[in-house]
Amino acid sequence: MMAALSFTDWTKAIQARMEQALLRHLPAADALPAGLHDAMHYAVLDGGKRVRPLLVHAAGALFDADAAELARAAAAVEMIHAYSLVHDDMPCMDDDALRRGKPTVHVKYDEATALLVGDALQSQAFEILADGALAPQRQLAMVRLLAQASGSRGMCGGQAIDLASVGIALSLEQLEQMHRLKTGALLRASVLLGAMAGKELSEDELAALDAYAAAVGLAFQVVDDVLDATADSATLGKTAGKDAADNKPTYVSILGLEQSKALAETLRSDAHRALEQFGDKARRLRELADLIVQRKA
Amino acid sequence: MMAALSFTDWTKAIQARMEQALLRHLPAADALPAGLHDAMHYAVLDGGKRVRPLLVHAAGALFDADAAELARAAAAVEMIHAYSLVHDDMPCMDDDALRRGKPTVHVKYDEATALLVGDALQSQAFEILADGALAPQRQLAMVRLLAQASGSRGMCGGQAIDLASVGIALSLEQLEQMHRLKTGALLRASVLLGAMAGKELSEDELAALDAYAAAVGLAFQVVDDVLDATADSATLGKTAGKDAADNKPTYVSILGLEQSKALAETLRSDAHRALEQFGDKARRLRELADLIVQRKA
Repeated sequence: MMAALSFTDWTKAIQARMEQALLRHLPAADALPAGLHDAMHYAVLDGGKRVRPLLVHAAGALFDADAAELARAAAAVEMIHAYSLVHDDMPCMDDDALRRGKPTVHVKYDEATALLVGDALQSQAFEILADGALAPQRQLAMVRLLAQASGSRGMCGGQAIDLASVGIALSLEQLEQMHRLKTGALLRASVLLGAMAGKELSEDELAALDAYAAAVGLAFQVVDDVLDATADSATLGKTAGKDAADNKPTYVSILGLEQSKALAETLRSDAHRALEQFGDKARRLRELADLIVQRKA
Repeated sequence: MMAALSFTDWTKAIQARMEQALLRHLPAADALPAGLHDAMHYAVLDGGKRVRPLLVHAAGALFDADAAELARAAAAVEMIHAYSLVHDDMPCMDDDALRRGKPTVHVKYDEATALLVGDALQSQAFEILADGALAPQRQLAMVRLLAQASGSRGMCGGQAIDLASVGIALSLEQLEQMHRLKTGALLRASVLLGAMAGKELSEDELAALDAYAAAVGLAFQVVDDVLDATADSATLGKTAGKDAADNKPTYVSILGLEQSKALAETLRSDAHRALEQFGDKARRLRELADLIVQRKA
């Protein structure tokens, strides 16, 4: 049924399904301590394009993964992503007041709550992923994968490099390495978790999905930098032009605008090429690569 | 061999073993990003009484658990504990400059690093626990247990209640509920993880260990409050008298000093009684209950 939908309808269906899955996998907003749970709901629900859950579901389609297990894995990844945004926005990090068009968690609540919301969302992600119904050996591998992608050699490590590079002239290679960790690791995990929810991956399949995820992950960041330099805050739902104002290195600052756009196109082709062996089952993954490069916000 | 040691020598042996296990289970300090990894080492190594690892090992002795798997579980719990201290000490939480006699992470490094160190240590804890060699089903249950104990209905939830209760007159029952989450949940997880590293627990064993952990967990907090009111900063390795200065409710502020000491003794007896079915194998758990109540720092 899902396969017959247009891409736009498919993304809407997944986004709606995710809203329910996230609600189901969060503690109730009025469960004690209600203040913390209310803030966790605020941080996670009703926001964002759900790119990572879309990747999980698109990769799950390759091997006809179970819908409930896909939603569980996607909720876990999205909670990690949501926690990272909450912490990232705090005054000691990016100090941002606006996120997805709404006040950030530390503005709406307070800094201590934002800190705890992020911490608790990370725990929640691992709790729900460890509670899945797949073969225990595979479920454990998924927990390990998500933990690696989140930690000091994944997302947190990329943020540390990002912080250390403010005002420093990075080479293109260094910039890529930073993004490979900061956003790439979790995007890669999304693809692999979706596929693993369907079956144990062969080395060949893993390599192909890795190549796809690497291309899409970099494309995502290149386009982010292009949008940060060209779109306005209302369209983005966050403060535009912030990287330049913060003197952060970006693809646009290193390559220029036109070359950055060309790079995004090249990466889109790379992503498509990596999927060749999967045939028509990879349709959603292809469409997502297109969406990521062609998005306007 | 370990069973023949005096309690003092046993604790020293476990503490030394833990230092090695923590080092083994952390990324190398010079692995990229080196700044973050160096700060993670600073936050975790060479500090503390390692009460949670001692509980893991003492509970593991009940069922002759494998030494490497115990060290792994203990390292995971200790990383969660260490991350919570790093975040707790930050200016938006307790704003403390001294921990274990050393500058806190945000003082030694900076706030952004402290935030990322805590985040990355939490990921690391789940990564290493999911990488154990026990039966996958049991290993998954251990991941779930640690995640529950760490999250919004465990440690983070207790911290949220703690923050919300500053300047408020809590009842003894509310104070207990707060501590059951804030410190009790992770102490309970330590005991159960140690035992689970040995075998699948029967309901009866689980109930007995739960009763032990509940008594020890509360005793730990009652004694903490007594020490905060009576010891000096040099002895504690952290700022003494801080709870009273912060207008936080404590056992001493509610019950008074003498009744608090009597309560700690009662809880020690409760802990001993809960262990009766385990006979001599529970010796280390009994000795730990004694240590927790009789400690001077």
